Amino acid sequence: MIADTSSIAGYTILREEPSDVAPDLSTQRPAHPLDQLSIEEIQWAAKLIKEHASPRTLKFNCLTLREPKKNEYAAFKAGAGPRPDRRAFAIVIEKGSSQVSEVVVNLKSAQVEIWRDVTDVSPTLTLEDLDVCETVARKDQRVIDACREIGIHDMSKVFIDAWAIGFDHRWGTDRRLQQGIVYYRNSPGDNHYAHPLDFSVVVDTEREEVLAVDIRHVNGERTKVPLGEHNYMPAFIGNDYQQGRLKPIDITQPQGVSFRMSGNEISWAGLKMHIGFNYREGIVLSDVRIDDQAEGRERSLFNRISVVEMVVPYGNPDPPHHRKHAFDVGEYGTGLMTNSLKLGCDCKGVIHYMDAIMAVSSGEAAVLKNAICIHEEDNGLLYKHTDYRDGTVISARDRKLIISQIITAANYEYCFYHTFTLDGTYKLEIKLTGMLNTYCMHPTETAAPYGTEVAPSINAHNHQHIFSLRVDPEVDGPNNTVVQNDAVLSDDPLGSAGNPHGNGFYCKKTPLRTSLEGAADYCHETGRSWDIINPNSINTVAKKPVAYKILNNNCPTILAKEGSPVWKRAGFARKALWVTPYRDYELFPAGDYVCQSSGQDGHPFNETVVDWAARDEPIENTDIVCYIQFGLTHFPRTEDFPIMPAEPVGVMIRASNFFKKNPALWVPPSIVAADKTSKKAFSGASDEPVASCCVNRDSKL
Amino acid sequence: MIADTSSIAGYTILREEPSDVAPDLSTQRPAHPLDQLSIEEIQWAAKLIKEHASPRTLKFNCLTLREPKKNEYAAFKAGAGPRPDRRAFAIVIEKGSSQVSEVVVNLKSAQVEIWRDVTDVSPTLTLEDLDVCETVARKDQRVIDACREIGIHDMSKVFIDAWAIGFDHRWGTDRRLQQGIVYYRNSPGDNHYAHPLDFSVVVDTEREEVLAVDIRHVNGERTKVPLGEHNYMPAFIGNDYQQGRLKPIDITQPQGVSFRMSGNEISWAGLKMHIGFNYREGIVLSDVRIDDQAEGRERSLFNRISVVEMVVPYGNPDPPHHRKHAFDVGEYGTGLMTNSLKLGCDCKGVIHYMDAIMAVSSGEAAVLKNAICIHEEDNGLLYKHTDYRDGTVISARDRKLIISQIITAANYEYCFYHTFTLDGTYKLEIKLTGMLNTYCMHPTETAAPYGTEVAPSINAHNHQHIFSLRVDPEVDGPNNTVVQNDAVLSDDPLGSAGNPHGNGFYCKKTPLRTSLEGAADYCHETGRSWDIINPNSINTVAKKPVAYKILNNNCPTILAKEGSPVWKRAGFARKALWVTPYRDYELFPAGDYVCQSSGQDGHPFNETVVDWAARDEPIENTDIVCYIQFGLTHFPRTEDFPIMPAEPVGVMIRASNFFKKNPALWVPPSIVAADKTSKKAFSGASDEPVASCCVNRDSKL
Repeated sequence: MIADTSSIAGYTILREEPSDVAPDLSTQRPAHPLDQLSIEEIQWAAKLIKEHASPRTLKFNCLTLREPKKNEYAAFKAGAGPRPDRRAFAIVIEKGSSQVSEVVVNLKSAQVEIWRDVTDVSPTLTLEDLDVCETVARKDQRVIDACREIGIHDMSKVFIDAWAIGFDHRWGTDRRLQQGIVYYRNSPGDNHYAHPLDFSVVVDTEREEVLAVDIRHVNGERTKVPLGEHNYMPAFIGNDYQQGRLKPIDITQPQGVSFRMSGNEISWAGLKMHIGFNYREGIVLSDVRIDDQAEGRERSLFNRISVVEMVVPYGNPDPPHHRKHAFDVGEYGTGLMTNSLKLGCDCKGVIHYMDAIMAVSSGEAAVLKNAICIHEEDNGLLYKHTDYRDGTVISARDRKLIISQIITAANYEYCFYHTFTLDGTYKLEIKLTGMLNTYCMHPTETAAPYGTEVAPSINAHNHQHIFSLRVDPEVDGPNNTVVQNDAVLSDDPLGSAGNPHGNGFYCKKTPLRTSLEGAADYCHETGRSWDIINPNSINTVAKKPVAYKILNNNCPTILAKEGSPVWKRAGFARKALWVTPYRDYELFPAGDYVCQSSGQDGHPFNETVVDWAARDEPIENTDIVCYIQFGLTHFPRTEDFPIMPAEPVGVMIRASNFFKKNPALWVPPSIVAADKTSKKAFSGASDEPVASCCVNRDSKL
Repeated sequence: MIADTSSIAGYTILREEPSDVAPDLSTQRPAHPLDQLSIEEIQWAAKLIKEHASPRTLKFNCLTLREPKKNEYAAFKAGAGPRPDRRAFAIVIEKGSSQVSEVVVNLKSAQVEIWRDVTDVSPTLTLEDLDVCETVARKDQRVIDACREIGIHDMSKVFIDAWAIGFDHRWGTDRRLQQGIVYYRNSPGDNHYAHPLDFSVVVDTEREEVLAVDIRHVNGERTKVPLGEHNYMPAFIGNDYQQGRLKPIDITQPQGVSFRMSGNEISWAGLKMHIGFNYREGIVLSDVRIDDQAEGRERSLFNRISVVEMVVPYGNPDPPHHRKHAFDVGEYGTGLMTNSLKLGCDCKGVIHYMDAIMAVSSGEAAVLKNAICIHEEDNGLLYKHTDYRDGTVISARDRKLIISQIITAANYEYCFYHTFTLDGTYKLEIKLTGMLNTYCMHPTETAAPYGTEVAPSINAHNHQHIFSLRVDPEVDGPNNTVVQNDAVLSDDPLGSAGNPHGNGFYCKKTPLRTSLEGAADYCHETGRSWDIINPNSINTVAKKPVAYKILNNNCPTILAKEGSPVWKRAGFARKALWVTPYRDYELFPAGDYVCQSSGQDGHPFNETVVDWAARDEPIENTDIVCYIQFGLTHFPRTEDFPIMPAEPVGVMIRASNFFKKNPALWVPPSIVAADKTSKKAFSGASDEPVASCCVNRDSKL
């Protein structure tokens, strides 16, 4: 029995009634092994873990699906093994001692199978943890005094965005810390990012106390809060909206969508996959495979795709800004920060939603309605060709399947669009929008070179957004190799027999053999790309191994001095690509515990992709994983204020000699026509029927 | 008096009646100085030029608008000068002597103002010229014999794609040459790119004779034509189309479009510009300017935007493939090759079309119906922000204005989408589709390393597509400077007072001072971009010069040995950016005469951007022009056959501290909502009205 009793930040919290029996799953269809934990499973898991720990009391830092081991799941899929038991994974914090432990509980056997105490780590800050910072700090006398000193007396107008601490030399990892970035609101709904204050606070998340109020003095002076209003909400824009200037564009799907859901599995245009979700990675796509009509068989593409880390390092070296480098996946959880779209979807057409189910610190289940949006979009031309001789025209339209989520990370919004198109391409497009992180300027200061003055006395600091897309490939089978492609000139000199006119160039192919070689940089000069090949599956037409190609040229590496704290902590962001051998539960390239991580190599409970690469294990023709880093370096513009126009950035992985021919020839053309008035060079040319035009001719101009 | 008498390749040819009087424009509204020549103007100009040349007889290679000089036009725009006289520019070839001359004729005064004979140059191959190649070659006995030797007896099944010669050492520029690339069709409508033959021909365009039949022998043998069918037309796909698998996505604009046309000037969402068109560049956008609502004034952005060159060098060094490096703008004219969309538009929604008016060799006018497509598209999120405290959500939708043309360059299709979005961004997106250039393989050959076997015995060679976008900026005024931006680490070492934690980074700004410095490479390591600034117009908020930023990281340079023929001919493709001082009628970076050009420096009638840069003139705070090169290196895939899925590539120029704030705040939000069930951190938070959701919830899954 559950009852909807409260909500927080868009989540509906479901409180459990006492229960001593395992959830009866016999009346439901069995969960797909990769489905999120259900409400009942979360409650059952929490109960089992609590009982196991008793009399110690616990706070659940996370409680999520423990995915089956790959071999176990593969055997089940192949019909060669039993259905994997459903298991939950939790990170728990013991109340009082603050001991952090990892727990795996088998929901079928009701057994806690793993209980591991971990040390010198600090788990994710949950929304509940973050909530502490503002509440505690606003009441703290030192904070009140710091505000009063610059003329702010009404503390209900003071807002404190909670951030992971980044790092602070004054405290180790014994305490779970946050930094609070302080703003002011002039009125309800006012944009507080226009009013940044000149101090920040450090809060102990567990003890709920303020440890420090770090006030910046410039020439011994405090900085006044900038009070100019820079707003974007309707209450402020009011009559400045130009209603009717943009005529509506209606996008409708009278016959509904072209995909089908079976539980959490989707099938669309021959493509199939499972859609999972968890508090940390958000959307997880698994078992991505495609019906290859030409070959008459289903072919695997990717075992698992998810965004496993990101870092937003800020480039202003003045303390305390060096602490600003948010790892939004590892420090906060992109699942937890996901927008519920029940208040309005940001996509057009017919939408299918999926809810997210997560746990709160009590072990109760929380449901986020409409966390995942699934929809289709027209994608313009798929192909076109005109025969210039007889005027024969054919063209077809491409289409996108988009599986998306939008997160709010305090000031910023990130919109993740996992996109598939009919030509066999996967693209992750991310749109960045929301609010710039801002800081106040003292009259003696300039924003340059480490920031931009985006409004009077408001400095938006230089920063980067570097994402890590984890792709566990299964290109036509489990054993793959990554081959680096470089476009290079012929080795033969100009005028030689092999290159008489000097125009020869080719794709130099270098297999990455070990995980140290798998740590690769992008190279503009050679237009570098990487093929994920299956050396055991040869495209008999091209006489090459089948491949999916990684196209990633939006891949700045981290702009921080070698050996600096953020360089160490965000080791994954030093390379455009890492390739490692697959290991169960090795997922997070900045470590399982990112908050307050030091980035030291070989941390016993917090290995990173730098450690995995350093093992230098073989990655040829084996089960491998790719971590693809991409993103952008953002020097803020005045145009980004007071709210940022969405800025897209993406990475693409697409078929490259994977299919034997264009895989979209089954798509009916939208135009087939012939110009009857053209002369025909070939007397026997066929007269294709002239299709009616699919567009509306505008006659009103 | 004109009468529609014939058509060719989608063009309607309008034949003139004799007339001795200038077209009476008094009854029409005067042409905008940048409008294409009208039908009447073409006829009048041809008549004037013919009379001037009489008794010599002429073939018109081109006959197009002579745009007014910049100063003259600027004075007119500013109300400080008279309306510029309409003028025509022609390149004419004297019948008999083959002398090439450039002519400028004033249509108002009826005077030929310039007549310049030019030497050692070869003008553009028109569609009529190209038509010669196939006709002449198919009848040539050596061609017939070459076909017969490999078993082909029906010459009506032999097709010869005409290409510019590239270069061939056997002939100079005394003759206008083409190369014919030979294919076979098995049946009407069959894809002949699946049946490439092993020889090519060289044809004299003027004398209409075959000069050479270059047959390739491998080990002394001819290569059989590959006869496997690889088709994409409905007659061949037939029942393999999966009707109904993709449900329709309908895009409608019940209130029509949001732009207005006034003649050939468009206004949309505060943006205004003139849309021109000519035989060579195709679409020309001029006078691009924006209504800056925050400043209450109209501000200039770009004086002129067009695609002025492109090169498609192929990387197979075996002759005769070294001759394949099409310059589709300069050698053929992207205007001439433009698709008429009267047979079906490739865009959705409400379309506005513009016709193109060009001249044929007789001097008659030809009209290409629906050459330019203008339409809008939804562009997803413009911005979004959720206040995580009170659940307040706002989001708005972005929109594109797209001015597009599609060209067919024998096998390939290029789709040019000049795109503007609400955040003040211009983007040129090009989609590449159509057919790969193919060659037959001898059984002893492999396609690697210089190509891919895309179907049995069919080799598609490595190639590049490098485009040159000419942007004549006028960022808030005529005098601009290009500043190179490099994201670099702080100069201060880690641990120093200026960079204690090593996280400092900034944007290093280097003004390009002379046209030699203006020849710039892209740099991945610093995420290089270029700002077109106006040093005379300071953004008073950012305290920086206003700027538009060039974002161009899809910019391979030409892959050919230094000093090789194609390296010389495509000098523009050696750099990602060239910046030169403005000069009237200096437009084409590979020269005015690209066919058979040698690329030698300092050609008296054929200067290139390499020559312009070598002048090393100042480019700071003056009237400048930018040539932006971008494109891709294409190693063909089996997926690209028998018809290529459209591959997009683009370049972006966007506001960067040009506006004082987000220029799209006037766009009404599509969603404004508040989660009533969320706790509110600020007791006085306003309750925004909850907007109804703009999407259809799918209930059928």
